Amino acid sequence: MTTINLKENERLDDLQRDGYVIISNPEYFCFGIDAVILSDFAKTKQGDNAIDLGTGNGIIPILMDARYGNAHITGLEIQEYNVDMARRSIEGNAIAGRVDIVQGDIREASKLFGCGRYDVVTANPPYMNKEHGLVNPDEHKAIARHEVLCTLEDVVREASRLLKVGGHFYMIHRPHRLSEIFDRLKVHRLEPKRMRLVHPFADKEANMVLIDAIKGAKPMLKVESPLIVYDIPGEYTKEMKGIHYGK
Amino acid sequence: MTTINLKENERLDDLQRDGYVIISNPEYFCFGIDAVILSDFAKTKQGDNAIDLGTGNGIIPILMDARYGNAHITGLEIQEYNVDMARRSIEGNAIAGRVDIVQGDIREASKLFGCGRYDVVTANPPYMNKEHGLVNPDEHKAIARHEVLCTLEDVVREASRLLKVGGHFYMIHRPHRLSEIFDRLKVHRLEPKRMRLVHPFADKEANMVLIDAIKGAKPMLKVESPLIVYDIPGEYTKEMKGIHYGK
Repeated sequence: MTTINLKENERLDDLQRDGYVIISNPEYFCFGIDAVILSDFAKTKQGDNAIDLGTGNGIIPILMDARYGNAHITGLEIQEYNVDMARRSIEGNAIAGRVDIVQGDIREASKLFGCGRYDVVTANPPYMNKEHGLVNPDEHKAIARHEVLCTLEDVVREASRLLKVGGHFYMIHRPHRLSEIFDRLKVHRLEPKRMRLVHPFADKEANMVLIDAIKGAKPMLKVESPLIVYDIPGEYTKEMKGIHYGK
Repeated sequence: MTTINLKENERLDDLQRDGYVIISNPEYFCFGIDAVILSDFAKTKQGDNAIDLGTGNGIIPILMDARYGNAHITGLEIQEYNVDMARRSIEGNAIAGRVDIVQGDIREASKLFGCGRYDVVTANPPYMNKEHGLVNPDEHKAIARHEVLCTLEDVVREASRLLKVGGHFYMIHRPHRLSEIFDRLKVHRLEPKRMRLVHPFADKEANMVLIDAIKGAKPMLKVESPLIVYDIPGEYTKEMKGIHYGK
């Protein structure tokens, strides 16, 4: 592994997978449990061409490479600082042959990369829309959390355009927008085939939903067993430990 | 309680709720766990005007009356034998002032009962569509299980027409058709506000989904904690015992 130079306020996390590390900066972008869960739910097959829309510090491509290591994954990110941070993590992990980062706008993704060229698209998009109140659009982290620069419609539309027929779109989002998510998927010919709800505790409402939609597929949804995060506060369930600390 | 006369092959079940009983006939209509779960998920408020579409032997109105007893509930049923069976159960339970049965076609429900007059519509419709293979449409039970006489579109459309704005449509269905369910709800201005997945075991796929959709509401879905039916084969979970044996 090469030396990693950290900038001010940055921290280096060990991803607990064969020495993989990642740089974060609390002022710009920190990954959450969402990215870890999506990286486990999404899959790549040997030789797949994959792209992560709005990759932040590259957490999803890096985790998926650590898990599968069988695909080429591009991370698309609009914010210059995040792009630099992601590239330094990739260099540090010496995985530049399989993972690269491109600076650009999700809304232009199919123009940048062409249509129908991807086997896999992943996205952990901003969850909150206008109904969640005003945000300061200049704040770096607001861009990752609120639909300031791209909406659900933008993400789903571009995912569909990028994918080959039969390709998979993996997304994590909030269950309270599920009806809208299904509607956008349908409009863009992405058929939800697999879904998993994530509940903080077994007796609590779901706070995340994982979707695996296939371009041009026939309708037939499988709702997997619920993913429960904690047994008791602060203590991961056995399954969540497996997801978080690698399998 | 009055005397109940059973016909050939009929059986009488104690619903374990204040002496409520119900007549079933395995050749015509037997209720499943689905009806029991839906009756628990659905609610009526004092003075509500409610209707159950495709009521079979009246299990849902009877269970809901046992649970709440605060509403008028009509059961709509197309098969003459089932109508007679349901009426005898209602008589036997002496609840004819609150529950009645009308023989008729779901597809004509809003013509029969008028538009915008109901606070609550419930439905445990046939789950299986044409893609599930041919059925013998003459078989009585096939009508309850397969979309022989009415489709999901028919049920959702009529539910929406029957409901007042702000009224609730409660339905239990199969999760594999969830995308189609959401699509039909949207087309008919029924907004899913609450959803619950039912899993036979905590680590198994969902095999039923409960939906509470409100006519004309704003989008914002709450996905409740999963309902797990069994701890081990044959042994209900604590929550399921509460639902099955009354609370």
